[in-house]
Amino acid sequence: MRAEIITIGDELLIGQVVDTNSAWMAEKLNEAGIELYQITSVHDSREHIIKALDEAFSRADIVLTTGGLGPTADDITKHVLCDYFHTRLVEDSRVREHIKELYSGRPDVLNRLTATQWLVPEDAIILPNRVGSAPLMIFHHGQQLLASMPGVPYEMKIAMEEQIMPYIGSQTISIIHKTLLVNGIPESALAILLEDFEADKPQYIHLAYLPKDGLIRLRLSAYGEADEEEMNKWFEQLKRLVKDYLVADEDVPLEVIVGRLLQKAGKTISTAESCTGGKLASLLNKHSGSSAFYWGSIISYDNSVKQHLLSVPEEMIRLHGVVSEEVVRQMATAVRSQIGTDYAIATSGIAGPTGGTKEKPVGTVWIAWATPTDTYAECFHLGALREQITDRACQKALVRMIQILRNEEENRKEN
Amino acid sequence: MRAEIITIGDELLIGQVVDTNSAWMAEKLNEAGIELYQITSVHDSREHIIKALDEAFSRADIVLTTGGLGPTADDITKHVLCDYFHTRLVEDSRVREHIKELYSGRPDVLNRLTATQWLVPEDAIILPNRVGSAPLMIFHHGQQLLASMPGVPYEMKIAMEEQIMPYIGSQTISIIHKTLLVNGIPESALAILLEDFEADKPQYIHLAYLPKDGLIRLRLSAYGEADEEEMNKWFEQLKRLVKDYLVADEDVPLEVIVGRLLQKAGKTISTAESCTGGKLASLLNKHSGSSAFYWGSIISYDNSVKQHLLSVPEEMIRLHGVVSEEVVRQMATAVRSQIGTDYAIATSGIAGPTGGTKEKPVGTVWIAWATPTDTYAECFHLGALREQITDRACQKALVRMIQILRNEEENRKEN
Repeated sequence: MRAEIITIGDELLIGQVVDTNSAWMAEKLNEAGIELYQITSVHDSREHIIKALDEAFSRADIVLTTGGLGPTADDITKHVLCDYFHTRLVEDSRVREHIKELYSGRPDVLNRLTATQWLVPEDAIILPNRVGSAPLMIFHHGQQLLASMPGVPYEMKIAMEEQIMPYIGSQTISIIHKTLLVNGIPESALAILLEDFEADKPQYIHLAYLPKDGLIRLRLSAYGEADEEEMNKWFEQLKRLVKDYLVADEDVPLEVIVGRLLQKAGKTISTAESCTGGKLASLLNKHSGSSAFYWGSIISYDNSVKQHLLSVPEEMIRLHGVVSEEVVRQMATAVRSQIGTDYAIATSGIAGPTGGTKEKPVGTVWIAWATPTDTYAECFHLGALREQITDRACQKALVRMIQILRNEEENRKEN
Repeated sequence: MRAEIITIGDELLIGQVVDTNSAWMAEKLNEAGIELYQITSVHDSREHIIKALDEAFSRADIVLTTGGLGPTADDITKHVLCDYFHTRLVEDSRVREHIKELYSGRPDVLNRLTATQWLVPEDAIILPNRVGSAPLMIFHHGQQLLASMPGVPYEMKIAMEEQIMPYIGSQTISIIHKTLLVNGIPESALAILLEDFEADKPQYIHLAYLPKDGLIRLRLSAYGEADEEEMNKWFEQLKRLVKDYLVADEDVPLEVIVGRLLQKAGKTISTAESCTGGKLASLLNKHSGSSAFYWGSIISYDNSVKQHLLSVPEEMIRLHGVVSEEVVRQMATAVRSQIGTDYAIATSGIAGPTGGTKEKPVGTVWIAWATPTDTYAECFHLGALREQITDRACQKALVRMIQILRNEEENRKEN
């Protein structure tokens, strides 16, 4: 069973909006055993949409479209789909009542443009959109099927999870992806390490390397031809081969691993951030349940904050500079005691584009990790671009934190 | 002049990676007067890549590909392009020397797989990749052109800016986009307000509505048929029509507007964050130059941090709850004085999925803004999804901050 996604909207093609929907939808399709063959982004143009539909139906069983369902004149998807499937718009009383309820008490929204939202294609199956006014439409096209959803990410997500995927149903083939997170080895060296493995594994099990910010995701994939047991066998072998560099044996964000390890140990964490400016904090509390282990942070962007809230002596800054082992160690131990957590991470670096020197060029980042018994610090050189530097700094901070927490877990087991 | 983008990689089609490259490239193309017609994401599969190339060349003058250029066996783009353009791989001594220099002192990287990176298609124009080992390749195809770049975002960006765009050159037609940011009016009501405008404007000037997290981006576009002067005329008219809801007259992130207003006034800001957990802080320091106005934050995720670092009385939390006007006002004034800034923003809310009650359901967020003279507070209901709630809370916090700063600017002018 093969699907394609068509994302519709000029905003995608002039770079005003990043298409985050497709990756999310791809994951859901894969989980249900449906292979996503292609993603195509097209303009809000009748002829362009029709061409893309023709091409997608020449390759796929299921076509999912997002976007172009708003009440304004630039949104044309519903009209184009009507023409494509030779049907016409009719009023749908259930959709009307739903929209009236959704916007009850909002006369400013319940206007005649919003009223066009309860006109739906006569031959489509209309599924309820719990959180918005655009109806979800399913068209059958012989043995093939098209589902049209809004482009607003949270509306699409709820539509996909609650309506579209249950409608499509899980398919029989089993798509299996298994991913390892690996750190501290170049991609090419990793590939050489795994040459025998690549030669030995069956052709229908694919191995892919996805480097990102210093970490490598190593993914085994099979599309229907290998079962869980066979995949596990090869996955375990892969794991043994890369064990010296292994960070995790699933494709899960690093902050989730940190959170799990902290929760398992019943411990808490805080951060003191200069160059990462709250990014590390927001990663640590990004996922639900994080209040169990993440307590808070002091973002000391300005030096005065380092001095007043983190007790970094002015003298220390003058002697060693603000991007230094001494300062970052002090930040980590101070925030740990200020916020009263078991662990703390501190960052101080030069995110650029200005502020670099010959000894400390842009990209230099000091990170410290404070634990109940020790404080560790390490200096990294993380490239030249501001966003890349702060992203990589967060990644380095989390990777080392995972190692520290794993070591302590091991030690507890031994004792 | 028309371009298409083909992004290559299984990771895009199983949802492991979000394609952020295309939007960035789209913007660059538009700036250079090149219309981006379609974005297509395909598998690391010879037949799939060739099909996509054929289709793209049937529509576009320029085809840009990203991805599939790594040294490992899963990356096949270079080989497929060789076949497609009927050429073969040969060693390139300049690329070899560049890679050797790039990785000097890294014998672990300079291995035989990395050495395959200096094999390049004989008939391609090879441009230097300053930050990576994958060569940038340009193929001429009659009057058409293909440029192949790595998929790693920062490598692609540097390649595009320093090599590919200068090579392609700016084209003669002028693509103009002008965007207003509008807040506080539903999309459908806005469209009704603008009906006469839509009817009056020339057909070749397009009006698009892009709602996002409560804000609406209202975009006028012209592809070669309107000049700057004509566009300005319609844009000014549009601005007058929506003046009561106008946040900005360009498509710039809200935090950039806050930063500009603060810098202009020579003022500083800090934040105290509970539900937004550092997201607001990292927005405020995301862009270079932010240290001029952003000083720091206290992320008080746990109540103990609210009490100890922001002097929120335990009694206040017991009486009013932690998501309340009283608490958020105290957080804002406390962080303002603790960090010593002119302004401060504080957030406290229920980001869910748990923690909601009947009176304060998930999505309830209190925000306070402290200024040198006043403290304002407002309660919002921002939906049901964790990420949406925190994103919208940041947006609301910034929109109101812009209004406060603009008012004060007006007052200064009047005095």
